[in-house]
This record gives sequence, structure tokens and C-alpha cells, in this order.
Amino acid sequence: MPSASASRKSQEKPREIMDAAEDYAKERYGISSMIQSQEKPDRVLVRVRDLTIQKADEVVWVRARVHTSRAKGKQCFLVLRQQQFNVQALVAVGDHASKQMVKFAANINKESIVDVEGVVRKVNQKIGSCTQQDVELHVQKIYVISLAEPRLPLQLDDAVRPEAEGEEEGRATVNQDTRLDNRVIDLRTSTSQAVFRLQSGICHLFRETLINKGFVEIQTPKIISGGANVFTVSYFKNNAYLAQSPQLYKQMCICADFEKVFSIGPVFRAEDSNTHRHLTEFVGLDIEMAFNYHYHEVMEEIADTMVQIFKGLQERFQTEIQTVNKQFPCEPFKFLEPTLRLEYCEALAMLREAGVEMGDEDDLSTPNEKLLGHLVKEKYDTDFYILDKYPLAVRPFYTMPDPRNPKQSNSYDMFMRGEEILSGAQRIHDPQLLTERALHHGIDLEKIKAYIDSFRFGAPPHAGGGIGLERVTMLFLGLHNVRQTSMFPRDPKRLTP
Amino acid sequence: MPSASASRKSQEKPREIMDAAEDYAKERYGISSMIQSQEKPDRVLVRVRDLTIQKADEVVWVRARVHTSRAKGKQCFLVLRQQQFNVQALVAVGDHASKQMVKFAANINKESIVDVEGVVRKVNQKIGSCTQQDVELHVQKIYVISLAEPRLPLQLDDAVRPEAEGEEEGRATVNQDTRLDNRVIDLRTSTSQAVFRLQSGICHLFRETLINKGFVEIQTPKIISGGANVFTVSYFKNNAYLAQSPQLYKQMCICADFEKVFSIGPVFRAEDSNTHRHLTEFVGLDIEMAFNYHYHEVMEEIADTMVQIFKGLQERFQTEIQTVNKQFPCEPFKFLEPTLRLEYCEALAMLREAGVEMGDEDDLSTPNEKLLGHLVKEKYDTDFYILDKYPLAVRPFYTMPDPRNPKQSNSYDMFMRGEEILSGAQRIHDPQLLTERALHHGIDLEKIKAYIDSFRFGAPPHAGGGIGLERVTMLFLGLHNVRQTSMFPRDPKRLTP
Repeated sequence: MPSASASRKSQEKPREIMDAAEDYAKERYGISSMIQSQEKPDRVLVRVRDLTIQKADEVVWVRARVHTSRAKGKQCFLVLRQQQFNVQALVAVGDHASKQMVKFAANINKESIVDVEGVVRKVNQKIGSCTQQDVELHVQKIYVISLAEPRLPLQLDDAVRPEAEGEEEGRATVNQDTRLDNRVIDLRTSTSQAVFRLQSGICHLFRETLINKGFVEIQTPKIISGGANVFTVSYFKNNAYLAQSPQLYKQMCICADFEKVFSIGPVFRAEDSNTHRHLTEFVGLDIEMAFNYHYHEVMEEIADTMVQIFKGLQERFQTEIQTVNKQFPCEPFKFLEPTLRLEYCEALAMLREAGVEMGDEDDLSTPNEKLLGHLVKEKYDTDFYILDKYPLAVRPFYTMPDPRNPKQSNSYDMFMRGEEILSGAQRIHDPQLLTERALHHGIDLEKIKAYIDSFRFGAPPHAGGGIGLERVTMLFLGLHNVRQTSMFPRDPKRLTP
Repeated sequence: MPSASASRKSQEKPREIMDAAEDYAKERYGISSMIQSQEKPDRVLVRVRDLTIQKADEVVWVRARVHTSRAKGKQCFLVLRQQQFNVQALVAVGDHASKQMVKFAANINKESIVDVEGVVRKVNQKIGSCTQQDVELHVQKIYVISLAEPRLPLQLDDAVRPEAEGEEEGRATVNQDTRLDNRVIDLRTSTSQAVFRLQSGICHLFRETLINKGFVEIQTPKIISGGANVFTVSYFKNNAYLAQSPQLYKQMCICADFEKVFSIGPVFRAEDSNTHRHLTEFVGLDIEMAFNYHYHEVMEEIADTMVQIFKGLQERFQTEIQTVNKQFPCEPFKFLEPTLRLEYCEALAMLREAGVEMGDEDDLSTPNEKLLGHLVKEKYDTDFYILDKYPLAVRPFYTMPDPRNPKQSNSYDMFMRGEEILSGAQRIHDPQLLTERALHHGIDLEKIKAYIDSFRFGAPPHAGGGIGLERVTMLFLGLHNVRQTSMFPRDPKRLTP
């Protein structure tokens, strides 16, 4: 199917070489015509990760990117990459390859996609720079399927270099904006491939765990009729807003007898925050659940769900974790079973002992959260814990007050490596108390009428929480910026790509 | 834990009864104080669906809604409902219940949530009106956990009544706007519970199938910097837009070597369409996949995914299907394996034979789609099929032309019961051809520069498609309005609840 006759590419170099006359190998290389589904050849393409000594001496076809190419006399060494796997390939002047073919191979632009036919050969010395260390591919045919432009906006090798190595050895690394501006290339690195495969795993484990626990997945609307800290949308002749959480809707589902619900979807925050952990659009993993007598029934279900995610990641994504660690070294994530639960007053005592001055009803600042994370890790050897019983004063109006202590509430946050990843609480399910608390917070009752009315026709006691997906990925892997764990991050200054 | 002393409810009737003096049963009923997680009693609540003859003569606690109550002399019959299950309960004057207690029970507002202690008793005659037909509950204690207001905006029994029955017998049914305005109550019906549990199952089966096929789940941004038919968002000091599809992002993931990706998320259409099948916000199940030589590799993967969903629903959700059928009778959904594929020209021939006049390059109108569905069902006995090779003229600019016939394209739609549920195609992966096609469509190249640039650094041939979740649910169940399968639908005229 591939042919050397294609002539649609602007790149001249390979074509000149191809056109040279009297080339006994000229049918064995070239630029294929664009794949337009002309044919259904029965050719089998072997995966790069399957190129092992078991396949030694077999002739195989492989489709991969040209990661690097290096000519050396009558030979050309290519590294062929497929996702996080790569293999060395050799084009050498001989029966199969002519001088022109070697030159052609050496001049294929990096990141081009090629179809290669070759013999798998065992090598005597392991190839340390490739994932397939025991074999190389002796190329018999090579066709370019999709030619990359000659100048790449960033080099993949630079993009995976650890910061420390870059600094010590004076070698290039790639800054964040360059990465994000050229995300299609940055996402090809082994680190990015691993990060986002693991993130897909988090979503999968979250749902798998909850569906096994009897939860129902719900889809909640993102365009809503009002709210605070929300983006405004032109909606035909009126205004609408973007939901900053599925809170109301998941609570409505509880009032509608779904009992245990979860959702995964975008949430929007119209806050001009430019920090390492804020995005204007992120993915919320949301849970809401009716309980029988105590909100700890829900809190423990959520904590167990997180534990199942951590375990699942460590069991199924070890390769990805290690790949990321190569570029971003980090201690393995530690957690206890059952999850450590501290009350807010206990945390205050630990912080005060460490010299922090804080009032009983003050919220935790970001540095104090971090410090508390260190103190907890030291004392209990865990990177994950629950902080329970927050002061009522620092929580939203719909948070259930603690019946035993009017300054406390039935609310909790959960932390990974000292940063908040989940905020949750028992919600007030009684319309009268909800009205009182809204008035206490100075909220216009007219604006939350529909919310309060949801509880007028019998509402079970319930609790829940919302988790930030990008933060969980970031903190599990010990990364330092939430933009590393959002494929196409949005912040007050970035709307593209 | 429940006590008769609570006094926070506005509802007077039950309280008056409770306050009556000299009641030997007065500790056995009442309105509980609000559950604020005061205690963790070790009481076990039994599920209504587990109340069977296996539990005969056991004393159990149940939490459920009062679906109906009916006093009859010294007795009161309640129907207690929990999700789609219900059981009859009897409060009768005797050792456990006083006259006042019976009166209290008879006066509990419908939809209130109660905790009931009772003995499970086998009944001699099956109770046809309940799901638990072989037993009833002899109530010993009854406490209201959450009291509903006395007037409900709609009656659940009316809301599940089949249209035909309503018309024939002159009995009430509930119109769509009343349902949607009071969604919290409408979602409690057995029909709604079944519809949305099945919809959760569609998402689960979609992901389960694709993850088993090696796909990676991606999260794509909904706030974007431009597009057609999009809602405008005020984004700090600028404008942004709501994505009308994850198209660009899933293609970027293919260019970034993820090879097989899917996403589930909201998509937004700023179209003033007020039909039974259009929403301004719906849930897109999106797939994109690199292929080796022919886009049918992808089309067949998508069709197989749909087949796995249909099979899974028929295996795992038979109860839900039957529940919906009670209200909305419908033939079981039929499909073939492998999926029937027709070419557009074949469909044209069938329509012409049936008397339809259509040009070779005309798109299918909605009535013709429906008609074609009938013809296909008659001829092939399937409710699901692929229509392949659409005229190039009716597809978007990024659709790959058919190399053998310049008027055709490598594109396909899929249909369920004669309505389109998926639109897909091979995409153009060559920046030069993409530019030519965009110019041909009169598109401003400046506006799609980022899109075209995505393909400049080596792009594999790829294809994909987008599925509307609400349509799949609607058509699988044979329903007639997409608002029935969106929990909180959005259309040009509806933004609430």
C-alpha cells in the first residue's frame, strides 16, 4: 500500500533523495500517500512493547514515531517510539537498504510517524536508552505515514529531564508555558502519558468502588439560573450561570430517593486566583449519600473510597508511578486503614504546640494546612487523613451544626500530603433550620427558594463531599502544580489551547 | 433516639393527637427530633426489598416513605415505599398501638419519611398493589423522621399512570412541565427511578467496554476560546465560549499518542431548537481512536461498544426495563451481531423505492430518518444500524473525503429506532488537505489555526464519533421525549430547577 510516489509534502529533503536515479531499494522506502482508508491490508502491526527476544529473528511490521535518528557511515540508527515504549532500529547498506535509503531514513524529521518492516534481532549488549533493551529492529522497509515539520517547538528529551539534572548539568528543560502552549507535543512524553493514564485510573477506581457500594451515577446541569462566584453565560435573551458545584442537584437526587449518588464533571470557579492549585475549571468527583443516624456513615464511605483508589493505583499503575518519579522524585504515598480521623480541636492543639497562634474558630491557612500535614505525617506516618468537626463559622450556611457544641459543625475536610482535596459535611435537611441558617448568613431567601423547597416533601438526613480530580492526581504523584495534571488547564490567564 | 417531644414542626395535626393525655402507647410513636448525628445507635434498618417470607415473624426496623395511608375503624393501613419497592404496614389498636397511635399514623402526610418497628407477617392473600406481595408489617412503633408538607404538587400514582389508562378511565396523569417543575417528587416514581438507574448503567457499560478495549478516559475543557453555535461566557475581562463538542481536544489527544480515548461530559448547543430530541445541554459520550489502515476499524469498535451496552442493559437491567414498560409500553430493543452496515446510496434506494424523492447529495430529513428506520426494521429486523459513506457535501469540513468517490466521505451515523444517536467520521489528519477543505467551506483560517497546527508534528490517521446519552436512554426504552431521560433538562425555555 505505501508507495514512493506521493508528492504532497512541502518537505524537500527526503524527496530529493528518493528521486535519485538507479536505486535498487527504491521500492523499499518513501513517503506514503495519505491514509484515506483506500484499502484494508491484512498486515499485522506489532506493538513496540511486544518487541522482545521471544520475537527474535521474526520479520515484523511496526508503526511508531521517529524519536531520534543518527547517521553513522553506512548505517542509520533510529529510536522508534510508541507511547511510553521505544526500540532501536538500524538501517544499514546491504541487500535490503541502499545508500539512498539510509540517507532517507537519517533525514526523516523527528516525531514523524513511520511504518517499518524489519527483522527483530537479539543484541549482545543491553540498549540502556530504550525500553526494549534486548532487541533491535533491522529495517528492510520504511515508509513515512505522517511527516512532522522539521522544527519542533520543544524537544521531548528536554521535556522529561528532571529539573535538578537540568540545573546541575546545564542542560535544557522546558518551562510550563511552553509545555502548555504546545500541549500536543508535551503530552507525548513518557511522564505526561503516565500522569494522564493514572488520572484515567483514578476516575475508573472511583466509579468502580462506588458502583460496587450501590451508588448511582448522575448527570447534573452545568448551566444554571443563579449562584455566587459564577461565570455569566448569555442564554438566548437572558443570562445564565455556570455551576460552581453540583451541590444542589446531588442533594435533590437524595431528596428524590436515589440514596447514594456520585457524579464526575466539570465545575467552574470565577475566582481570580493564580496559585499552584487553583483552576477556573476543574473536574469534580462528587458524592452525596443518605445516612441512617450519623454522618460518619458517609464520611467513612468516602474515606474508604479514597483508600480503594490509593490501593488500586499502587497495584495497577506501578509503572506509571515509577515513570513520573524518574522526572519528579517523590516518596511513595502512605495511608492507614481505617483512615486517621482527627478533630479540628486536636489539630489546633498540634499546631499550637508547634508555635502557631490561632483562635478556636479560625480557618486553616494554606501554610498551616501544610504544617499540619507534616506534623500528622511525623506522628501517624500517613499522607492521608480526615479533619472532622470544623468550626461552624467557617462553613457554608447549609452545614449541619453539631448538636453538642453550637460552635462546631458536622463537617470535615480530607487531606493528601498536607493539602485539602475534599470538603464535605452533613447538610441541613430541614427547611426551617435551613431558613434560619441562611438568614444568619445574610442570604437573600428569595434567591435560594428552590433550594429550600427541595426539602419540604420529606428529606432523609444526608452528607457528602466534593473531590478535586486534578489535586488528587497531583498530590498522589507528589507533583507541585495542578496544571501538570490537567490536560488543557484553564486559569484566569489561560484559555488555550 | 426518636422521641415524642420534638416541637419544631409547623404541621399541627399529628402533634395535637400526640399531646392527648393518658395514652399507654405514647412512647411508641411521634415526631423525632431532627437527625443531627447525635448518636450512633446499633439499630439495623432492613431494606424493604428484603421483607419476604424468609423474615416472617421477625421484628425489624424499616425506614421508608409513607406512600399512602388509609384508616379503617381501629386500624390504619400504610403503604411504605423505598425507591421502587413497597410493602403494606398495619397499625391496629391492641397491645402495641393505642387509638391515638392509629390516628397519628393515619394522619402522617404522604411522602413523609418514617422509622417503623414491626413484625413481619405472612399474608394469606397476595397483596397485588405492593412489590412485597407475601408479607405485611405489623407496626409496633412509628416515628416521623422527616415530615412532608400536607399538599404535594403532584401525586406519585398519577405520575406513573400510563397515558392510555388515564384517557380511557378519565383518571389524572401529570403533564411534563409539572413534572419538571417538581422534579424532586417526579424522580421518586418507579418509572423515573428505573430510567435513571438504567442511564447510570449505560455510562458504566460504555466505560467498562472501552477500558477493556484499552481506551483512556480524558477530561476536556468546556470553556474554550471560540467556535460556532456556542454560548458566550464572560471570562474576567474577556469573552469565552462553551464547547459544543470535545472534538478538537479528543483529536489533540490522538495527536498526543493516547491512541484510543473516550470522554463523558456535558456539551452545549446554542440552538433555538424546541423539539422532542434537542437540548441546549446534554451529555456526550465521545470516542476517538487512531487506526492502522481503514476507518472501519474504528466504526466497528464503536458499533461493538453499542452492542455491548445493549446486551449489558438487557442482562443487568431487566427489572428497570419492565418497570418503564409498565407506564410506557414498547417492543424490546433488537440488534444484530455484527451490526448491520448500509451505505448511504443503499438507503437512498430504499427510500426512493418507498416513494421518497431525494437527490444523491441531500441530507436525511427527520421524517425520512424515521421512515428509513421502519424500512430497515422490516427488511433486517434490527433497531440499530450504521449508515456509512455520507455525501461529502453534508458533513463538516474536517471529514475525510472518500478517495474512490469525491462526492462521498468516510463518515457514518448510527441509528436507534430510526433516530440518529451518533455521528462520526474519519477526520482529516493532514494539515494541507485540512486547509484546502476549510477554504472550500469558506472558513476563516485564522480562527482554526490552532486546530490545523495540531496536525503539523506527525498525526496518525484517526476516526471517532459522539453519542448523545439522553437519546440512547430514550430510544432504548422507546420513550418519546429526551426530557424524560435528562434529570434536569435544559432547553431554550427551561433553566430550572
